[in-house]
Amino acid sequence: MEAPAAKRVLRVASISGSIRKASWHSGLIRAAAEVCEDCIPGLRVDHLDVADLPMLNTDLETNGGTGFPPAVEAFRAKVRHADCFLFASPEYNYSITSPLKNALDWASRGVNCWADKPAAIVSAGGNFGGGRSSYHLRQVGVFLDIHFINKPELFVFAFFEPAKFFDSDGNLIDADTRERLKQVLLSLEAFTRRLQNNKD
Amino acid sequence: MEAPAAKRVLRVASISGSIRKASWHSGLIRAAAEVCEDCIPGLRVDHLDVADLPMLNTDLETNGGTGFPPAVEAFRAKVRHADCFLFASPEYNYSITSPLKNALDWASRGVNCWADKPAAIVSAGGNFGGGRSSYHLRQVGVFLDIHFINKPELFVFAFFEPAKFFDSDGNLIDADTRERLKQVLLSLEAFTRRLQNNKD
Amino acid sequence: MEAPAAKRVLRVASISGSIRKASWHSGLIRAAAEVCEDCIPGLRVDHLDVADLPMLNTDLETNGGTGFPPAVEAFRAKVRHADCFLFASPEYNYSITSPLKNALDWASRGVNCWADKPAAIVSAGGNFGGGRSSYHLRQVGVFLDIHFINKPELFVFAFFEPAKFFDSDGNLIDADTRERLKQVLLSLEAFTRRLQNNKD
Amino acid sequence: MEAPAAKRVLRVASISGSIRKASWHSGLIRAAAEVCEDCIPGLRVDHLDVADLPMLNTDLETNGGTGFPPAVEAFRAKVRHADCFLFASPEYNYSITSPLKNALDWASRGVNCWADKPAAIVSAGGNFGGGRSSYHLRQVGVFLDIHFINKPELFVFAFFEPAKFFDSDGNLIDADTRERLKQVLLSLEAFTRRLQNNKD
Repeated sequence: MEAPAAKRVLRVASISGSIRKASWHSGLIRAAAEVCEDCIPGLRVDHLDVADLPMLNTDLETNGGTGFPPAVEAFRAKVRHADCFLFASPEYNYSITSPLKNALDWASRGVNCWADKPAAIVSAGGNFGGGRSSYHLRQVGVFLDIHFINKPELFVFAFFEPAKFFDSDGNLIDADTRERLKQVLLSLEAFTRRLQNNKD
Repeated sequence: MEAPAAKRVLRVASISGSIRKASWHSGLIRAAAEVCEDCIPGLRVDHLDVADLPMLNTDLETNGGTGFPPAVEAFRAKVRHADCFLFASPEYNYSITSPLKNALDWASRGVNCWADKPAAIVSAGGNFGGGRSSYHLRQVGVFLDIHFINKPELFVFAFFEPAKFFDSDGNLIDADTRERLKQVLLSLEAFTRRLQNNKD
Repeated sequence: MEAPAAKRVLRVASISGSIRKASWHSGLIRAAAEVCEDCIPGLRVDHLDVADLPMLNTDLETNGGTGFPPAVEAFRAKVRHADCFLFASPEYNYSITSPLKNALDWASRGVNCWADKPAAIVSAGGNFGGGRSSYHLRQVGVFLDIHFINKPELFVFAFFEPAKFFDSDGNLIDADTRERLKQVLLSLEAFTRRLQNNKD
Repeated sequence: MEAPAAKRVLRVASISGSIRKASWHSGLIRAAAEVCEDCIPGLRVDHLDVADLPMLNTDLETNGGTGFPPAVEAFRAKVRHADCFLFASPEYNYSITSPLKNALDWASRGVNCWADKPAAIVSAGGNFGGGRSSYHLRQVGVFLDIHFINKPELFVFAFFEPAKFFDSDGNLIDADTRERLKQVLLSLEAFTRRLQNNKD
């Protein structure tokens, strides 16, 4: 009787919807990477920087819509390469941010790079913890054919006591939130394996 | 070499968000049942009538929230028994209807009967073909832990020429729409099997 | 020089989306009525009970869609008679409740009774204080031609310490929330007068 | 008896959510400007270009969040100067575009430049005519305190026969759509005057 094959490590492409240096959302992604390294052997988080993508403008496409500016091509390759996604999605004015929407749209042009892959959303912010953005992102995912996990949702209510949750560089310093983030990642791993297995 | 085991027939519990007699949405469910009988051996559609459910009022619950009025108990049992769901969801005033929301809420009380099951949405109507209701229903599904298929979506733009699509009893009479409905059902079957297989 | 005419008292038709006896949302409406009586002379709150409305079914309409069951006729008359609306809208499963949606839909049939009138939304509940329901209600209002005030929004985060906010009969007992409710009502009054004046 | 004073011409600041050259949405704004010049003496449309705004990044703010990059300052001044807004909002992946969201967010930072002003939305596109984006934009408007007109909505269903609606430069060439656009503008003018009058 053979030992069961080790599970393949799943690549989680992570995107922060905020491009400021000390972003809480980039901090959430760094924390997710650490959590996976420390205690989720089946996941590896890669942070996809979206700050260098040009503002979406289809006039920048070449070859009948199959060619893209170099930064876009590089980003699209990383999206295609991923097994699943982790979006750290701030809420700006009750919806998703322009850097995040811009990245979502660029990787959807021509051949949709997001298609048929699972994802999770985390956010931090004011009275809804960034939550309003997540439901707009989920609607975007219907067209992009992203399979979002339903539970758990992670909204960090960091407005009134930000220093309890994040340091001044945006690093997550709250142990409870880190544990909740771990539960999100475990759910994402389970849902990804469940959806992948039956494709073999 | 063994023959592969026949696939288990999946039970699709179907709910129409309209309770009028000649409802197009009830007609869509009858058509879905016929399509499955005719050419999708892996699916069987059961229509769950929601007209007799009382208006949601938690004062009607007994035994500390574990007992329900008889019509509710019967409905909840059918939801629990299903493998997946087909919602025929009209758009009333840009959202879901009260009979549908009422049914969704009753089966979520106490032990959530919808949890971790796939679903598809179809609708017919005016300029968006009933589509605005589907995105509200998808948001409800996040909390109910329903896994909606992303594609294909079926919105029947029946407003300007209803007689092309439905007869006066609400029966679907358009062959193209019937074919699109079949594609929705096949996608629902595939997604349900994909999610179920890995739970065994 | 004449004294300015006293301002006409505006009729606020109020609807609770929950029909259970000890509903927090019915409590919010009772509190709104008290606040107006105590310190907003320009507003009078009338609670419109929606518990007796039949589940929406257009087969119940008569005279080519111009006649309605008696409870519906009575409700529609009160909606027509109002200057503006206060919705106490619970969040059930991330959306509005069936009793509320049912009332909204009945008064929209045939001649839309909501048209061109201002409204405000208040809610109480779990981690978003019922807030997810308010954005669905606002979308419904686009079709119903309701002019919602934007600010202030009132979401009572009553989940973790309900007894701080409501007594066991659903009465609002928190002074801060009562003050915030007053601000909502003052904003509703101002917006209603602003929209009404220029129609004279 | 004096002649009534001529009505002040209202400034409509218009923003296209697409920055490609032959954009249908920029074409809708050009058409709106022409319609106003031809037959709505009370409105003047100014097109606010958003292509040069940097991607939102609060690290670019100076003076404790009161200073902005020059292109942002110029844009914010135009928003502040306007009486009302016309958004030509494409639907990308079931939501608003990044150039539009970016512009909305920049003018909301620090002192919110959108506050308490009316707006209308028009869109063109596929099966919903761009409509899904409008409901996300309306939710953004709740926080920005924008008062959107409810009716009429203009969704140009231009997908199947684009050449019927727009020429290859994105100019609107359909007379019926131009008439519907005029009705949107007249409704925007009426709502703006109604909200402004009572502030004098």
